[in-house]
Amino acid sequence: MSYLGIIAEYNPLHNGHLYHFNTSLDITQAKYSICIMSGNFVQRGEPAVIDKWSRTLAALKAGFDLVLELPVIYCTQSAEIFAYGAVSILNSLNIVDYLSFGSECEDIDILKKIAYVFANEPEEYRDILRQEMDAGNSFASSRANAFMKYIKGDFSYGDADNIKSILQSSNNILALEYLKWLIRLKSPIIPVSVKRIGPDYNDQNIQDGNFASALFLRETAKNHDWEILSHYMPPFSMDILRQCINSGKAPVTVDNFTSAILCKLRQMPLHEISSIIDVSEGLEYRIKKAASQSGSISELIHNIKSKRYTETRIKRILLHSLLGMTKSSLTPPEYIRVLGFSEKGRQVIHKIKESCVLPVITNMSDYKEYKDERFKKMVAMDILATDIYVTAYSKEQDRTGGCDFLKGPVMV
Amino acid sequence: MSYLGIIAEYNPLHNGHLYHFNTSLDITQAKYSICIMSGNFVQRGEPAVIDKWSRTLAALKAGFDLVLELPVIYCTQSAEIFAYGAVSILNSLNIVDYLSFGSECEDIDILKKIAYVFANEPEEYRDILRQEMDAGNSFASSRANAFMKYIKGDFSYGDADNIKSILQSSNNILALEYLKWLIRLKSPIIPVSVKRIGPDYNDQNIQDGNFASALFLRETAKNHDWEILSHYMPPFSMDILRQCINSGKAPVTVDNFTSAILCKLRQMPLHEISSIIDVSEGLEYRIKKAASQSGSISELIHNIKSKRYTETRIKRILLHSLLGMTKSSLTPPEYIRVLGFSEKGRQVIHKIKESCVLPVITNMSDYKEYKDERFKKMVAMDILATDIYVTAYSKEQDRTGGCDFLKGPVMV
Repeated sequence: MSYLGIIAEYNPLHNGHLYHFNTSLDITQAKYSICIMSGNFVQRGEPAVIDKWSRTLAALKAGFDLVLELPVIYCTQSAEIFAYGAVSILNSLNIVDYLSFGSECEDIDILKKIAYVFANEPEEYRDILRQEMDAGNSFASSRANAFMKYIKGDFSYGDADNIKSILQSSNNILALEYLKWLIRLKSPIIPVSVKRIGPDYNDQNIQDGNFASALFLRETAKNHDWEILSHYMPPFSMDILRQCINSGKAPVTVDNFTSAILCKLRQMPLHEISSIIDVSEGLEYRIKKAASQSGSISELIHNIKSKRYTETRIKRILLHSLLGMTKSSLTPPEYIRVLGFSEKGRQVIHKIKESCVLPVITNMSDYKEYKDERFKKMVAMDILATDIYVTAYSKEQDRTGGCDFLKGPVMV
Repeated sequence: MSYLGIIAEYNPLHNGHLYHFNTSLDITQAKYSICIMSGNFVQRGEPAVIDKWSRTLAALKAGFDLVLELPVIYCTQSAEIFAYGAVSILNSLNIVDYLSFGSECEDIDILKKIAYVFANEPEEYRDILRQEMDAGNSFASSRANAFMKYIKGDFSYGDADNIKSILQSSNNILALEYLKWLIRLKSPIIPVSVKRIGPDYNDQNIQDGNFASALFLRETAKNHDWEILSHYMPPFSMDILRQCINSGKAPVTVDNFTSAILCKLRQMPLHEISSIIDVSEGLEYRIKKAASQSGSISELIHNIKSKRYTETRIKRILLHSLLGMTKSSLTPPEYIRVLGFSEKGRQVIHKIKESCVLPVITNMSDYKEYKDERFKKMVAMDILATDIYVTAYSKEQDRTGGCDFLKGPVMV
């Protein structure tokens, strides 16, 4: 009776995701599957194209038994913090046997070896990393450079070019973070790497057989090209996406929040902007100036961007300011939030309630009176994220807040 | 060589406004005319339908020599504070001979007599007023009731029904505030009342000869009914309005800020909402709840409204939250901001620079380095108001901030 865990966003769920899920089941022969999913905002620093309940339904229709929400305080952050939240939740369930992820690199051993360095941060490596950062590079490229310098000459890591390319691919970067946190949390969960097929997440215009990037699919969905989408998405997932679009609830994009973000940043004093998560080293001045000089979100990002601050990091900062996410110490997850489950998933929930020390929330209203401060803070941010997300809907009656209290879990 | 002052919003400037201006010139035989005008947000608690520079141009084309800006901290407030700001500015110029206003009541003596009570607030009157307020009525109706009780039996005020109706008409209410502040500031300015003709400001669907309410005109402008508008607006004013609409800069309405206001209020904690100007007596709870339950601004207003909190007061509160206007003590105007002038107006500016102790701002950029804290705070709010206002424009390139620095005064 083994349990498979997968960390996902399914934004939207496509053939590549389905391939990964089915391959993971094949490899692990797991009986139960659990998905840890981002809520209404995702790691690229954007609102999800469709809401979390619709994406939950897609995951359940794909075959998952249980979908749990990754609290928003982890969702819109760097790969490191995103992975920390997701792996912590999986680990805290105390029943998960496998964590399967897609990555460009098939060789789990080499990934583990790299992750070991990241997890333990030997002093020498850390010194080089600091130098790279001080030179004004982004964290991702600083880390890749530092790692290459640190292992210099050690051929057990394999060919240098190969290592370099591993460190630069977006799925590997996430995979390495998952592995890092499994090591740091001393988790017994066994990592499984499934080689990604099809184009990379970030390729907008490339399709390959029946696989296309989520970005390409989101762009295609905006144009209502259902014929094209049908090649790359399972029918159930396309139906869910279509229903959301037809009802005026999708696609939600960051442009829906142009007015809210511009008005807010123009109004925020510098010291408040500097307190936003991910704003550091005087970036508040660039943000303040750009907010005044820009008439759209893309212009705003362009005006803030620099060698050090990648587009994704800036997009995350914009969401953090929209949601009022200010700097505070990173805390472990406070709860297990059930977004949906299948018949089989019901048994998994029972099992988790026995094995996990965290409260398992199936109906948020049961927790309205819960007094724990850290719990309240974390959950309030999830509720707010939804309340802000729904303001993008085209029908006034759909923009009502409090969905997290009103909507029960999705059941199939 | 006499100077006429008029306090106005010209939102938009129509035949009734022109009639008032020309009649005021006739009565006073003034050589120069000065308009104190709201900036981009107006006293009804709304953004102005067209921006302050376009409305300045309309005022200059109507014949004004000089248009000065009423700082936004007075604009979006109660009649009392609006009048305080405007009368203070007029008075501080030290050259103005007449203040002319439109009011439903022609009899300046009766208005002055009532204003005298409001200005001096005899203890007996104040006690009754407090009782009325405690009974949960709005300020306007509490004051009308208190006044009637206070003067009970004093026939020198004239017929009771007449007094009552005076106290309930919106233009009289403003006129009484102007008079009150002239008394309180011991101003030598002579008040002049011109009887309003045409329908009341708030009548949406009533036209009368060549006069229509500004509200009716704004609604008609939304539908681009230029033929109808031409009956009620001087051609120059209609052209300005049309140009703004054709270029995607009008009509600006509070609905343009739906997303910004809903996102902001949903995110603001209760203690921050309670610090917003005009929020008192636990109204923050109603606002917070309504922000969650409403999908549009009209629904939001409806959900907050009560006997005590009028629609206009709530609309003002929404703007105050959008602009981040928090409670602080009311301070006198810190500067004279020139929005526009005619050839003749140039002489008036010279004259004012000699007579007035406040700095006279013709180009905002001259004041970028000005250090006075109260000045900086007041001016920062004007700049922010414009920077938020322009986010409503339909073309991205027009949404750039800093217009208050970039645009010089309008000259005709």
